[in-house]
Amino acid sequence: MTRSREIRLLSRPDGRPTAANFELAEVELPEPGPGEAQVRNRWMTVDPYMRGRMNGEEGSYVSPFHLGEPLMGGAVGEVIASNDPSLQAGDLVRSDYGWREAFNAQAGKLRKLDAQGLPPEAFLGVAGMPGLTAYVGLLRVAALKPGDVVLVSAAAGAVGSLVCQIAKLKGHAVIGTAGGAEKVRYLTEELGVDAAVDYRQHAGRLTQALAAAAPEGIDVYFENVGGEHLEAALNIARPFARFALCGMISQYNAGEPYGVRNLMLAVGRQIRLQGFIAGSYTDMTADFLRDLRAWIAEGRIKWRETVVEGIENAPAAFIGLFSGRNLGKALVKLS
Amino acid sequence: MTRSREIRLLSRPDGRPTAANFELAEVELPEPGPGEAQVRNRWMTVDPYMRGRMNGEEGSYVSPFHLGEPLMGGAVGEVIASNDPSLQAGDLVRSDYGWREAFNAQAGKLRKLDAQGLPPEAFLGVAGMPGLTAYVGLLRVAALKPGDVVLVSAAAGAVGSLVCQIAKLKGHAVIGTAGGAEKVRYLTEELGVDAAVDYRQHAGRLTQALAAAAPEGIDVYFENVGGEHLEAALNIARPFARFALCGMISQYNAGEPYGVRNLMLAVGRQIRLQGFIAGSYTDMTADFLRDLRAWIAEGRIKWRETVVEGIENAPAAFIGLFSGRNLGKALVKLS
Repeated sequence: MTRSREIRLLSRPDGRPTAANFELAEVELPEPGPGEAQVRNRWMTVDPYMRGRMNGEEGSYVSPFHLGEPLMGGAVGEVIASNDPSLQAGDLVRSDYGWREAFNAQAGKLRKLDAQGLPPEAFLGVAGMPGLTAYVGLLRVAALKPGDVVLVSAAAGAVGSLVCQIAKLKGHAVIGTAGGAEKVRYLTEELGVDAAVDYRQHAGRLTQALAAAAPEGIDVYFENVGGEHLEAALNIARPFARFALCGMISQYNAGEPYGVRNLMLAVGRQIRLQGFIAGSYTDMTADFLRDLRAWIAEGRIKWRETVVEGIENAPAAFIGLFSGRNLGKALVKLS
Repeated sequence: MTRSREIRLLSRPDGRPTAANFELAEVELPEPGPGEAQVRNRWMTVDPYMRGRMNGEEGSYVSPFHLGEPLMGGAVGEVIASNDPSLQAGDLVRSDYGWREAFNAQAGKLRKLDAQGLPPEAFLGVAGMPGLTAYVGLLRVAALKPGDVVLVSAAAGAVGSLVCQIAKLKGHAVIGTAGGAEKVRYLTEELGVDAAVDYRQHAGRLTQALAAAAPEGIDVYFENVGGEHLEAALNIARPFARFALCGMISQYNAGEPYGVRNLMLAVGRQIRLQGFIAGSYTDMTADFLRDLRAWIAEGRIKWRETVVEGIENAPAAFIGLFSGRNLGKALVKLS
C-alpha cells in the first residue's frame, strides 16, 4: 500500500480563495489495477485558470471541480509500478493528476515525457501548457506580423514572460506591464523588453502610462489581466490591432466585475479580440517544442520559477497567484 | 450659375444631436472647372456612423467633420454638366457629396452608376454601403458556417434587416432584436426571423429574453447596438462564437458609456469579437452585388426605406436615427 496526501476542495471560494477552501487528506492507494500504473508526483503546477473551476457552473470553461474531491491539474511524476506494457517503473510521465502525492491511473491517461535535457518541471511551465499558450496566442491568435508593436500584461508571469521573449527574438518592440519594481526590473534588464510599466503606480491612469511607453500605439495585445488593462489597451490600439485574450486575472476574484467602457473603439479601429485556450491549438505543439528547444539552446529564452515545497503548501501556492508576488511559473515540488 | 442649399455643422453635438447643431446655407456654384462635373443630387443618406465624425478627434474612425463646412456622406445624383470625357449630362453617379443639393467635383470623385433595374436610391441602402456591410460582416467577419444560430441587433434597420434575410436564406436560425411592436412584427412576419425580441420590454434583463429566444445559445452575433446587448450576447454565446462588431448605436450619444462586465466569457468560450468597416472589404463588392441581384430577382430580399424630402429636413432625418423610430434605411430625397 502507498500512502498519498491530496488537496480537496472543501468549499467554493467567494472572491479570493483562502486556506479554508481547501482540505488536506490522506488516502491509501491500492495496487494499480489491470492497465494501470502507479505514479509518484514530483511536481505539480498551480495556474490561474483553476480559479474558474472552483466556481459552480457559471462562467467556467472547463467543468467545475467537485466539492470533497481532490483537485486536478498538471503534474509530472515517476512511474513506481505499472501493469501496462507501455510504461515501466522509472518512466517520467505528465498527467492531469496534480494536487496529490501519488495516484493510480490508466496508462492512457499518462503521457510519457522525453525531457531531452530540460528539467522535468519545465514541462509544467515554459515547455508545457503555459509555454504553448504564449506561442499560439502570439503567433496564431494575435497573428503577429512584421512591424507589430506588442503589449503584454502580467508580463513577468509564466505566460507573459515567454510572450515577451518570443516577440523580442522576432524583432518586435515590446511593452510589458507588471506589478512592482522587482518585476519591472526583471522585464527590462533580464528579458529585454523595450518598456515596462508598473501598473500599480498608474491605477486609474494606465492609458496615459501605456501611451507614454508606446507613443505610436500598439498592434498586438496579449491579455492576461483584464479590467483597466483592457480599456487602456483599446485606447492605444492602432487600426487592425489583434488582442489575444488569454486570461483576465484581475477579474477572477472580483465581486463586481470591471465594466469595459470603450469597446466602441473596436468598431472604428477594426480591432479583433479573440479568446483562446491552448488546448484548442495542440496542432502547434510540435512546432512550439522545436522552436522552444532551439531558442533555449541559443540562450534566447529564460524562465523563472517560484517554487514551494510539499503538498500541504499547494493551496498557499495557488492563493499566491492572485497576490501578484510570484515571478515566473508557480510550482509545487512534491518529491 | 446653379444655386445649391447645403447643411453645415454649426457645433459639435453634446450627446444626442439637435437641430441647433446644424445650419442650412445657400451657395452659388460656379461652372464646373476642367476635369470636373456638376451634379444635382437626387438622394442622400443619413447613417449612424456620421455621428462619430461630428465629434472632435476622439474615438472617430474617419476624420472629423469641420465646423462651418458642409457635411459629407453618400449621395446619388445626376450629372448636369461635365468637363470630363468619362461623364456626360444625364449620367447617374454615386459620390460622397451628400448633405447638399448640387456640387462640382473632379470626375475621379464620382462613380458612374449602372442601376440595372434597381431604383437609384437602393445604392445608398440595400445595394450600397449598408448592404455591403451586412454581407461582409456576416459572411467574412463573422465567418457564417452551416448550423450557426445568428443573433442580430437593430435587426429592423438598414443593415440588420439584410443580415437577417441573408442568414435566413442560407438556412440559419435567426433571432433579431428591435424596439417596439411594429418592428417586431416586421421581423417575424415580413422578414421571417425565427424570434424577435423587443429590447425595450426587457431593459435590464435582456440576457433572459435572448436566452428564451435562443435556448441553445448563439454562434454569431451581428452587433449594431452595444451596451447591454453586447453583454447579453456574450452571456448566451456558445464556444467559438464570432461577433461582428458593426456599430454600437446605443453608445454614440451616451454621456457615460456602458461598461461591459463579462468579457471574461470571451476567454473560456474562445469567442472572437471583431470590429469592421465595409470599406475595408471592397474586394467583396462584386460578389455582393451578384448575390444581391440574384436574391432580389428570386424575391428573397425585401427592404424598407424611411424617406424625408428636402435638404432642409436632412438634420431631422439624421437625428431621427437615434430615436429608434425608423424602419429600414433612412434617406433624404433631394430632387
